[in-house]
Amino acid sequence: MTERQPLSRADFEAQIRDMERYYHIHHPYHVMMNNGELTQKQIQGWVANRFYYQVSIPIKDANIMANCPDQATRSQWVQRILDHDGHGDDPGGIEAWIQLGEAVGLTRDEVVSQEHVLPGVRFAVDAYINFARRADWHEAASSSLTELFAPKIHQQRIDNWPENYPWIDLQGYRYFKKRLTEARRDVNHGLEITLDWYKTREQQEKMLKILKFKLDLLWSMADAMYMAYILECPPYFNLPD
Amino acid sequence: MTERQPLSRADFEAQIRDMERYYHIHHPYHVMMNNGELTQKQIQGWVANRFYYQVSIPIKDANIMANCPDQATRSQWVQRILDHDGHGDDPGGIEAWIQLGEAVGLTRDEVVSQEHVLPGVRFAVDAYINFARRADWHEAASSSLTELFAPKIHQQRIDNWPENYPWIDLQGYRYFKKRLTEARRDVNHGLEITLDWYKTREQQEKMLKILKFKLDLLWSMADAMYMAYILECPPYFNLPD
Repeated sequence: MTERQPLSRADFEAQIRDMERYYHIHHPYHVMMNNGELTQKQIQGWVANRFYYQVSIPIKDANIMANCPDQATRSQWVQRILDHDGHGDDPGGIEAWIQLGEAVGLTRDEVVSQEHVLPGVRFAVDAYINFARRADWHEAASSSLTELFAPKIHQQRIDNWPENYPWIDLQGYRYFKKRLTEARRDVNHGLEITLDWYKTREQQEKMLKILKFKLDLLWSMADAMYMAYILECPPYFNLPD
Repeated sequence: MTERQPLSRADFEAQIRDMERYYHIHHPYHVMMNNGELTQKQIQGWVANRFYYQVSIPIKDANIMANCPDQATRSQWVQRILDHDGHGDDPGGIEAWIQLGEAVGLTRDEVVSQEHVLPGVRFAVDAYINFARRADWHEAASSSLTELFAPKIHQQRIDNWPENYPWIDLQGYRYFKKRLTEARRDVNHGLEITLDWYKTREQQEKMLKILKFKLDLLWSMADAMYMAYILECPPYFNLPD
């Protein structure tokens, strides 16, 4: 058996970018969202549930750093935690997401209490944290690369929501705008680590499976919300009170 | 503020048993299953997905034992691992489940390869393993108490499937029969640990939340299967090939 050649750096990156086809931008929930077809309740459901992802990101990143003995990497990676948790004058991405919650008509407490977070969303997000806790840090870092695909979905929201959902307060867009610049910088670092780390063809294919796992969990989050808010079958919907 | 009294042992047990109302026996997927309303594909989907739960049980139990310094408890708890993985003349519950797979028309390889396991099912089951890995062992042990409710669902299958699904080979029932006797013994041990461990009212309420987490994950597994096999919206169903 001849060993298969590794992909060139450019081809490996192309295959990574090609995984966009599984991004949740294609999930019916997000397609409907972008087409202006969601009710206020359905938008609120998404914002309240996605908050659990937002608060988990710095925990995921702290786990990556906890496994990373390379000081130079940590000193770059910590910026993600600062961006989400806030630092100095920047109140941070979590705070911006809470303001998005208020902009769509939720109270701050409804968002922060996580009372609307569905079990299926929690299990999917926790899978991400647990992966970061237990995997090699390069692998965990490369699982973040769905942020390659995020600028497009953020830009769509900035472009289409004001017309589709005129009742959303404009302060709500701050998170998406903030991430447009941050994601670009994060992607460069994550991509560099990834393209350097996976050498053989088998390793490169393992990375694509890891990225698929991350895409699966984003899709699974949207499934749980679809079940609860579009089909109106949240957990225990059919039980007597 | 007056401190609330702890529930008596009998009342605490009654509240635990009352959680049966959230058991997945009430999930539409299982209601349909019991009513004979599922197609062969839908039965197969459940058997193939539930296999991931089956293989995860001994890993969950090993995690509980890994955190348990009490030799007497470990020497009882290990029986669960022996029951599932097999020991001596008993080929074990995992093997019995594979035979259930064959009895409903799946190949052994289709079951063992986990190729049909849905991401949402995997995330829910992994949440259980991770809880056992990180929680105090008493708490992890008490999360197993959904087995209080299992004999009824197993008995229903033994009673109703032969008429509803005459195409299922009779060897498939071995798992359910095996668990009827084992679950009774496991429940006694788990209940004893639980009723002894949680002393204050706050602790007792914490235990009920832990049991709810376990019920949530069983429900969430059934949701993912409902989406995939009843609504025919498995992950990425709407994407071009």
